[in-house]
Amino acid sequence: MAIIDDLIQIVGPERASDDKTVRYAYSRDSSFITGLPDYVVRPVSTEEVAKIVSLASQHRIPIVPRGNGSGMEGGCVPLHGGIVLDMHNMDKILEVDTGSLYAVVEPGVIHAHLNARLGEQGFFFAPDPASTDFCTIGGMIGTNASGMTCLKYGDTRKSVLGLEVVLPDGTVINTGAKTVKSDCGYNLTALIVGADGTLGVVTKAILKIIPRPRARATVTAYFDEVEKIEEAVASIFANGIIPAACELLDRPVIRIINRYKPEIALPDVDAILIFNLEGSAAAVEEEVDGVVSSCKKAGAIEVKAAATKEEADALWEGRRSVGSAIYRLDPQKAGPNIGGDYGVPIRRLAEMLREVRRIAEESGITMVAFGHVGDGNLHTHMAVNVLDEEELARAEKAGDAIYEAALKLGGTTTPEHGIGAAKIRWVREESKSAYPLMRAIKKVFDPQNIMNPGKIFEIS
Amino acid sequence: MAIIDDLIQIVGPERASDDKTVRYAYSRDSSFITGLPDYVVRPVSTEEVAKIVSLASQHRIPIVPRGNGSGMEGGCVPLHGGIVLDMHNMDKILEVDTGSLYAVVEPGVIHAHLNARLGEQGFFFAPDPASTDFCTIGGMIGTNASGMTCLKYGDTRKSVLGLEVVLPDGTVINTGAKTVKSDCGYNLTALIVGADGTLGVVTKAILKIIPRPRARATVTAYFDEVEKIEEAVASIFANGIIPAACELLDRPVIRIINRYKPEIALPDVDAILIFNLEGSAAAVEEEVDGVVSSCKKAGAIEVKAAATKEEADALWEGRRSVGSAIYRLDPQKAGPNIGGDYGVPIRRLAEMLREVRRIAEESGITMVAFGHVGDGNLHTHMAVNVLDEEELARAEKAGDAIYEAALKLGGTTTPEHGIGAAKIRWVREESKSAYPLMRAIKKVFDPQNIMNPGKIFEIS
Repeated sequence: MAIIDDLIQIVGPERASDDKTVRYAYSRDSSFITGLPDYVVRPVSTEEVAKIVSLASQHRIPIVPRGNGSGMEGGCVPLHGGIVLDMHNMDKILEVDTGSLYAVVEPGVIHAHLNARLGEQGFFFAPDPASTDFCTIGGMIGTNASGMTCLKYGDTRKSVLGLEVVLPDGTVINTGAKTVKSDCGYNLTALIVGADGTLGVVTKAILKIIPRPRARATVTAYFDEVEKIEEAVASIFANGIIPAACELLDRPVIRIINRYKPEIALPDVDAILIFNLEGSAAAVEEEVDGVVSSCKKAGAIEVKAAATKEEADALWEGRRSVGSAIYRLDPQKAGPNIGGDYGVPIRRLAEMLREVRRIAEESGITMVAFGHVGDGNLHTHMAVNVLDEEELARAEKAGDAIYEAALKLGGTTTPEHGIGAAKIRWVREESKSAYPLMRAIKKVFDPQNIMNPGKIFEIS
Repeated sequence: MAIIDDLIQIVGPERASDDKTVRYAYSRDSSFITGLPDYVVRPVSTEEVAKIVSLASQHRIPIVPRGNGSGMEGGCVPLHGGIVLDMHNMDKILEVDTGSLYAVVEPGVIHAHLNARLGEQGFFFAPDPASTDFCTIGGMIGTNASGMTCLKYGDTRKSVLGLEVVLPDGTVINTGAKTVKSDCGYNLTALIVGADGTLGVVTKAILKIIPRPRARATVTAYFDEVEKIEEAVASIFANGIIPAACELLDRPVIRIINRYKPEIALPDVDAILIFNLEGSAAAVEEEVDGVVSSCKKAGAIEVKAAATKEEADALWEGRRSVGSAIYRLDPQKAGPNIGGDYGVPIRRLAEMLREVRRIAEESGITMVAFGHVGDGNLHTHMAVNVLDEEELARAEKAGDAIYEAALKLGGTTTPEHGIGAAKIRWVREESKSAYPLMRAIKKVFDPQNIMNPGKIFEIS
């Protein structure tokens, strides 16, 4: 019997396909990496997933779990054919217990939907990816997604209490518990979060939820030298304040935003910091004062605290425009994700930004860096004519130079977008000493290497 | 050449011993589990550790890393002889960078010493074990220690950014980075934290540090039915408040404290909740109001907010007396750690406490339960004549019944004290489906099973 018939037997004809059009739709994510699956299946239950994975195991066919394809590094792209498991139909919020601070969800639940539901009761799931409106909890678990509020609330791993996982041989395991603390043997929950779906298919997750902050305020500070931001941030920490968000725009990005949307009229300074403070009303008020005085003490040219929500939104407009601004710089050029996600110790941020400016100049590639200062996480956007091989190669070299610089400064090449297919070189380089162990762990879970092959590691 | 001569060659005669008196001193921790090592070595550097571990690997001798022996489950007891690695000389705080929110430390640093040093700059390492004055960071990493403030600040795993680890074959690996987010391949940092030293010897740790809260307040609430505490806590969460600590004393424990220290004069109620609120002065003030009103709404008989530090200390005195009170109940009896650490979803706490009361009655063993309500973590203290085999067996049966009840309520048998030797049965039972994977991971790291053998798993 052909594989597609077996798949249809498991999920019915509506949810299994080997049609070329369908397969093509599942051949990419938000990166430029592509790969055509042989089959697409949309399971609705753990049992179906287990049967599909067993079938794949029996025939040694790759299995590629997929949420909504918003990943930046090719994590859900089927590089070696096989079965794409589209998990988006498994989108039930199974349990919400605000008194016990947990929710149980299926992996296809969209982040924003979960938080809308939790919000009705005054709670939220804290990790905060920019793709909230379309990314799934399963995808967030695969990449250990975070976002602007990571310093205050943590990444996805910190908010996952337990998992149900279908292993590459089709068996189902459960990890963790519905409690904040649980360490009964090795913590497989923490290992599977961030594993890019290479260790198994997550079919259920117990998530930690917390009360929503009751108030929020926004502060913006302008600096004539990017170096001064470090002093400002250090002084804010020393004042006892952890901002919910602390975003940086440096001069190149400011100029691009002003060119794209002159009405925003950002000042032509070397760096802008934008803060969100969250908590109780009284705490936020106090923190606004602290942030303003710290920024002034560190030599900010100007510091503004938004008095209303509208003012706050206006202050955030510049930050929100970064993506569109860079993509529209040159209609001939695209914005491939090259050198796009890296982190350094917070006090090395200015140094890192100088490096990026130098690399931009030397490579002749238009690029800007911006990011989450509070956790030292930067993103680069490049404008590249991806059809021009020479230019693309130059961009890639520049991307490598950026990652090398981050590592030299004691940082990381993979803070929040996962590894997928795009960053496997950096696992070898950044995690050199631990690399053999990682490969051996993969083999323990997946001796046939059918679970999302070609991700995190090359196919050997 | 005898092993001891090899060891002396590595660390010199002052820091290696096979003397029986020395060995005896290293034969136990804070549990009742004992085991005599063949050698005791006190390394001062990663290089020494690597050499000692290589030697052990060559001769297939067990290696048992040890901090200060404050563990409750036998984690550092050499059950199968071999070399105890006393890490307490590796006690340097190598780097503190408050502007980047990290510190780099050796594993022998005492928790309270680290926080004293960080406190000078207004920062702290958040995990908060009761043994702060003597437990080491290495021991905290081994057990994934937490404490009263875990709900607000998280367990040790959440505050460890990276590790240097000597693997069982003597090679040295580095994991993580000096950044809040780093996921370059499988997260071995999270895997090694809580592994009870069975995967390697931690020789360095990058810790996340955060600003110290500027203010603290204490609130106590009395309830005539333990069931009402769940409503109180749920209402506090719904008010947007996460207490820094939320401790429970139920009727049996209250009575024992009053018998031991009548001057404390706790009211004879069914349950007492004691809260600490931490943050900025304004936030704490607001939270005190919220906690008071939530407790009243949930039907508390009386709620007190401490106006001064002295008043707060007085409110905490009852909680602090639990340990001494139970141990001094009967001079003939000891307080072995049986059924001592378990957790349930917060909303099942009252149910769990009723179970403990029932088990106490049925077994005829004097016991009390108390604990960290905010994360559903309870501890039982028993008074047992450990020389009476029948009574000890009865106590152990009662302990098992407690753990079984916790599992039935969707909880965990290992929230914060680690597994060590005492809880290996519960790894098999609670983590049944994941157990074969755990054993296989152990084998990847330690094919000869020389790294703390007999912990987490039986020697097969």
